[in-house]
Amino acid sequence: MRFKIYITIVFFFILSKSDGQTSPSLILTKDGIKEIRQGLGRVALFDQTLATVQLEVDAEIEKGIDVPVPKDLAGGYTHEQHKTNFFTLQKAGVLFQITGDERYAVYIKDMLYAYLELYPDLDRHPAERSYARGKLFWQCLNDANWLVYVSQAYDCIYEWLSEEDRQALNDGLFKPMADFLSIETPQFFNRIHNHSTWGNAAVGMIGLVIDDQELVDRALYGARSVSVKAGAVDNDGGSIVAQDQEMGFLAQINHAFSPDGYYTEGPYYQRYAMYPFLIFAEALSNKRPDLKILAYKDSVLIKGVYALLNQTNSAGEFFPINDSQKGMSLASRELVNAVSMAYHYGSQDLSLLSVIASQGRVPLNDAGFDAAKAIGEGLARPFIKPSIELSDGANGDEGAIGILRGGDLTLVMKYAKHGMGHGHFDRLGFMLYDETGEVIQDYGSARWVNIEHKDGGGYLKENHSWAKETVAHNALVVNKDSHFDGKVKEADKTSGTPYYFAAGQSVRIVSAKETRAYDDVEMHRTMAMVDLEELEHPLVIDLLSVQARAETRYDLPLYYVGEFMSSNQQLQTNNDLTPMGKESGYQHLWAEAQADLTGDLYSMTWFNKKRFYTLTSVIQSGDQMIMTRIGANDPNFNLRRDPGLIHRRTGVNTVFASLYEIHGSYDYSTERPLNLFTSIADLKVLHQSAEYVVVRFQLNSGEEYQLAFSLKDDSESSQHAVKSAKGQCTWQGVYEFKKIK
Amino acid sequence: MRFKIYITIVFFFILSKSDGQTSPSLILTKDGIKEIRQGLGRVALFDQTLATVQLEVDAEIEKGIDVPVPKDLAGGYTHEQHKTNFFTLQKAGVLFQITGDERYAVYIKDMLYAYLELYPDLDRHPAERSYARGKLFWQCLNDANWLVYVSQAYDCIYEWLSEEDRQALNDGLFKPMADFLSIETPQFFNRIHNHSTWGNAAVGMIGLVIDDQELVDRALYGARSVSVKAGAVDNDGGSIVAQDQEMGFLAQINHAFSPDGYYTEGPYYQRYAMYPFLIFAEALSNKRPDLKILAYKDSVLIKGVYALLNQTNSAGEFFPINDSQKGMSLASRELVNAVSMAYHYGSQDLSLLSVIASQGRVPLNDAGFDAAKAIGEGLARPFIKPSIELSDGANGDEGAIGILRGGDLTLVMKYAKHGMGHGHFDRLGFMLYDETGEVIQDYGSARWVNIEHKDGGGYLKENHSWAKETVAHNALVVNKDSHFDGKVKEADKTSGTPYYFAAGQSVRIVSAKETRAYDDVEMHRTMAMVDLEELEHPLVIDLLSVQARAETRYDLPLYYVGEFMSSNQQLQTNNDLTPMGKESGYQHLWAEAQADLTGDLYSMTWFNKKRFYTLTSVIQSGDQMIMTRIGANDPNFNLRRDPGLIHRRTGVNTVFASLYEIHGSYDYSTERPLNLFTSIADLKVLHQSAEYVVVRFQLNSGEEYQLAFSLKDDSESSQHAVKSAKGQCTWQGVYEFKKIK
Repeated sequence: MRFKIYITIVFFFILSKSDGQTSPSLILTKDGIKEIRQGLGRVALFDQTLATVQLEVDAEIEKGIDVPVPKDLAGGYTHEQHKTNFFTLQKAGVLFQITGDERYAVYIKDMLYAYLELYPDLDRHPAERSYARGKLFWQCLNDANWLVYVSQAYDCIYEWLSEEDRQALNDGLFKPMADFLSIETPQFFNRIHNHSTWGNAAVGMIGLVIDDQELVDRALYGARSVSVKAGAVDNDGGSIVAQDQEMGFLAQINHAFSPDGYYTEGPYYQRYAMYPFLIFAEALSNKRPDLKILAYKDSVLIKGVYALLNQTNSAGEFFPINDSQKGMSLASRELVNAVSMAYHYGSQDLSLLSVIASQGRVPLNDAGFDAAKAIGEGLARPFIKPSIELSDGANGDEGAIGILRGGDLTLVMKYAKHGMGHGHFDRLGFMLYDETGEVIQDYGSARWVNIEHKDGGGYLKENHSWAKETVAHNALVVNKDSHFDGKVKEADKTSGTPYYFAAGQSVRIVSAKETRAYDDVEMHRTMAMVDLEELEHPLVIDLLSVQARAETRYDLPLYYVGEFMSSNQQLQTNNDLTPMGKESGYQHLWAEAQADLTGDLYSMTWFNKKRFYTLTSVIQSGDQMIMTRIGANDPNFNLRRDPGLIHRRTGVNTVFASLYEIHGSYDYSTERPLNLFTSIADLKVLHQSAEYVVVRFQLNSGEEYQLAFSLKDDSESSQHAVKSAKGQCTWQGVYEFKKIK
Repeated sequence: MRFKIYITIVFFFILSKSDGQTSPSLILTKDGIKEIRQGLGRVALFDQTLATVQLEVDAEIEKGIDVPVPKDLAGGYTHEQHKTNFFTLQKAGVLFQITGDERYAVYIKDMLYAYLELYPDLDRHPAERSYARGKLFWQCLNDANWLVYVSQAYDCIYEWLSEEDRQALNDGLFKPMADFLSIETPQFFNRIHNHSTWGNAAVGMIGLVIDDQELVDRALYGARSVSVKAGAVDNDGGSIVAQDQEMGFLAQINHAFSPDGYYTEGPYYQRYAMYPFLIFAEALSNKRPDLKILAYKDSVLIKGVYALLNQTNSAGEFFPINDSQKGMSLASRELVNAVSMAYHYGSQDLSLLSVIASQGRVPLNDAGFDAAKAIGEGLARPFIKPSIELSDGANGDEGAIGILRGGDLTLVMKYAKHGMGHGHFDRLGFMLYDETGEVIQDYGSARWVNIEHKDGGGYLKENHSWAKETVAHNALVVNKDSHFDGKVKEADKTSGTPYYFAAGQSVRIVSAKETRAYDDVEMHRTMAMVDLEELEHPLVIDLLSVQARAETRYDLPLYYVGEFMSSNQQLQTNNDLTPMGKESGYQHLWAEAQADLTGDLYSMTWFNKKRFYTLTSVIQSGDQMIMTRIGANDPNFNLRRDPGLIHRRTGVNTVFASLYEIHGSYDYSTERPLNLFTSIADLKVLHQSAEYVVVRFQLNSGEEYQLAFSLKDDSESSQHAVKSAKGQCTWQGVYEFKKIK
């Protein structure tokens, strides 16, 4: 109601004033503003977003200006207030430009003067936990967030301000802040890290606004007059290396993204990092078109947006690779900005429009308007996520993640780089989803972001002692120790090795090796997702081949999600529980039950939400299964009490061969279960060696299928012949999957 | 598409045939059929349901007739097939009447002949676990289900069949089945129990179809020629008492429902039991209008439907009182039938239409058509669930449950009868919901209904050893023993005692006593849900007064739902866990942590889905809190690993005074927490005695509130004056809740 009235008033204002303006020039352009103003009231998604944002900002203006002396950590009052301020300022700037209502400009000016009052006398923040303490916030990262957002607001009113005001704010607030974040804190500014990306963007954006070429260069190429102390580390234990010549925004792009747009810290941090990358790039496109920043490195910034979209489950939530809080999704403000931008500045890909429509709002800028308009015109097409391998490393040659999609299943296997300070020791680990959500989960990070109850909302100590450790993942643990002995520095040196990736119509395969996580142990995991006409959903085949020089104890955990239904093994449950170990994550596990496995294969069925799931795995003599529960040594109840299953084996060279079947359904209002037992009757390893693995499985209905795989020769034309328990197997190429009968 | 073509064909058929028919007369009436046929294609909800049911039945007809020799338990093939058969037959009968398509009649006839082939030679079912083994199924209950549904199908084709067919089926199948379920199995037929209701309805309905007055009388008044062995018990340990003259359908109505329509076994079983009550009543209304069955006992059957609707959370799921599988809801087929029937045969209450619309389908009968038509005409009104007390006992004088509703909160307290074989030892226990779901949960039953993995889908032994015990509920445990020493027979003898119930605009109170659950201990719990202008949601006040003759150990469990955030107490966590006891449910609990409580009050905040919740409770010297986890002594992983908190106190006369506050929010895509700490600054018991309890609490913002309550005098006009720590308190009536400052 209020909104409609508003538009009418605004039109008059615009017509009389817009031609005389020379700002904005950063994120909103003059042409864009003209088009937006003309389209107001006719582009539903944009109008809705505008109305919502106006309500939010008007409510904040009503509350009055509050610029407290910094004191609290994340989650605390002063932290949250300054955060609210920068978001509100940015929105107010946009509203001033779109509606022309001076109230917004006055609000921004008044708030900036309040900061000008406060800032010059501020020392670094009183909380001392950051390696790079900020002034407004406990860490420079948040100060940089502030500047990235507030630069946009400042740009929107820059022309509107008097020369006097500009001078006062530039000299008293913005230039000192830019210097503080860069030359006064090189350990923050001159890294190759997402923190530095924010720092670079912050300094560069304010430089563009106030037309300070030196600041823009500093942003692009680093603060070259200062250097970082050798051997410095950040709060997460990540080393702060200032490599010669490798600093600044362009270097961040070079290093942060693989040619496929993958970001080595994983999608949770990529989502966070994308905002400064894209927003500064947008600003540079407008002010420094000579740099051709969006075309830089084969348009890798746009590719990064696609990489993010591809790293989501069916609910649009990111895979929790490395340190990630689960639940972060395409609905986040960063992605709302990113997807519209990829549409507008990219190839006007109509399938992005369906993603934007599902987000339910657009950024209030040229890109958002363009996307909303196209959606209004009915141009949206479905965004279909493919099976895809995303390379890691600046040159795309340092590992990858492989994503298989079939039916409503999604499988992700990680054999990328470690991911620096936020990396987890999870080489060749995987996660599995269906449309109901997680089937086999990754724990994610041990953290409640911004929730003060939990150690101020930062990383909890269990993030190190549990969440990062190998045993917390669906990844092989050798001799109860994590990969790389749990050392980030060692893990950072190398990556997993992609071996084979294929996405066929009914067979999708990902296969990768890890030879350095443990001395003298080589792991090679091959996972296939195959459509069988007899089954409701694709079947997942998991072949983990291990070559070791000496007898080794292997623990292969599986974090199934749901309630245990039954197993074909005789479980011995424990009523008295003790932690399973003292370190490497085992100190957080209780063994609730175990079984000495008997027979040729073991199976375990679980239930979650409305479906049944069955694991079937081949037994070798002496194997054990252990039913685990997370929660020991957890004095503050920081860990979820999730269940797991460990397949334990002692041996030298071996293969873990398993099937994961998704089957049946249950409805609580009819109480009728369908297809509640597995269809797998048998699974056998017919051949295993350093060169090959051949498995065959049989369904209850009698059909037999066979997968033969070459572990050393990935040529599509090679001929293979191996002896197996069922006679000679011959095939051409890396693999053969076929129906035997 | 298919459906539309069909309707056209059907109309011709109907016009030429309907007038000559004399059936059906049981559930569908001739007049009703006429109206339905005329309305086809014009009543969306009915048409949709019809199209869906046609697809289902056509698919079954396609599969062919399968009447296997009985062998399996619930969940197994023969069980599920016979179950599918009776559902399909009932639907086919209705389709024959509505569409006039003889394919359906032929299908029913052929199927019935297949049963006629099988039935006469059948002995009782080979599985021996039931106290009343059936023939088609492992228990007579399911055989009765079969007959209730198949009677309806038989009625639909009765006139269509030849006299010869009728004779063959009556004599060879239906009469023997009716005799089997009644005179051959009196322990099943002559009880006051939901099983018998099905038995009575089954025998009565087939009696009405084949016009056998003796069978109808047997259904109404019991099988009086036979009697039950003294001291017999059923599988759940419920005693099978055949009281003199108390048997048959009318006696079931007399005994099953309180005057408020509450059913002593709780809503899960009421939902199940309502179907035979209502469907047989419907049939009697048509064939024996002289009985005025729907007006019987002040229309208690219709009241029963309202009682069910009132016993749901905001998602329409039933409160899991007594043995109940959670998730059963208004979406169940029984409620789909019941609500339309209550609309049609009741007072045409337009608010029921919104419930029916949310169910998304209607029964294919007169009632369903009537409701669907009214919905199509836009007559639906919202169904608002009130705060309400539902009495228990045939005369309404044997306890009750109290339901408080305010904002989006729902609180249920149970002080009803035990609930016979399915009862739980949970006097004065409670559950709390908000719109996100459970806040403080009742465990429900330990059972996975029909899921064969879990002991055939029946009750698990942990249902006795855990789910029924007092410590599994939010109810007071005295000296580690369950109420009534865990003896059903003792518990069945008495009920809780309602003391006071009031549902005001901003203050709702339920108060009840339990004096017999323990020798020499009297419990009196008063729970209030109050609206405070300072808080986002109503606040719940919990005052549990206990009077005991000797020093007693009290354990008050609280099964909060979600993740522990923080507590103001110093918790000592245990890394080595051992079961907390040997019996009464304690054998299934591990103590994960404990604290000797210090200070005046303890608080504990938890988080679930998107909200924060805080318990604040007054400490007495020597009190302890214990953080518990369910799961010990659970060899088959039958129990959920849910957390709990036990407040432990040793004393004589005492009061447990607590507040439950629902506050704040968290969004995973913005990662911004709001109002994540409790607003409660202080809580004090100002007075406690056998006669009165007075508490006062303060908010962080400074406001103080006081609740004074009279425990012995429930007159609204009495004047009270008590000494308190803050001076004299005076008030009139049972309680006073007021803002002090």
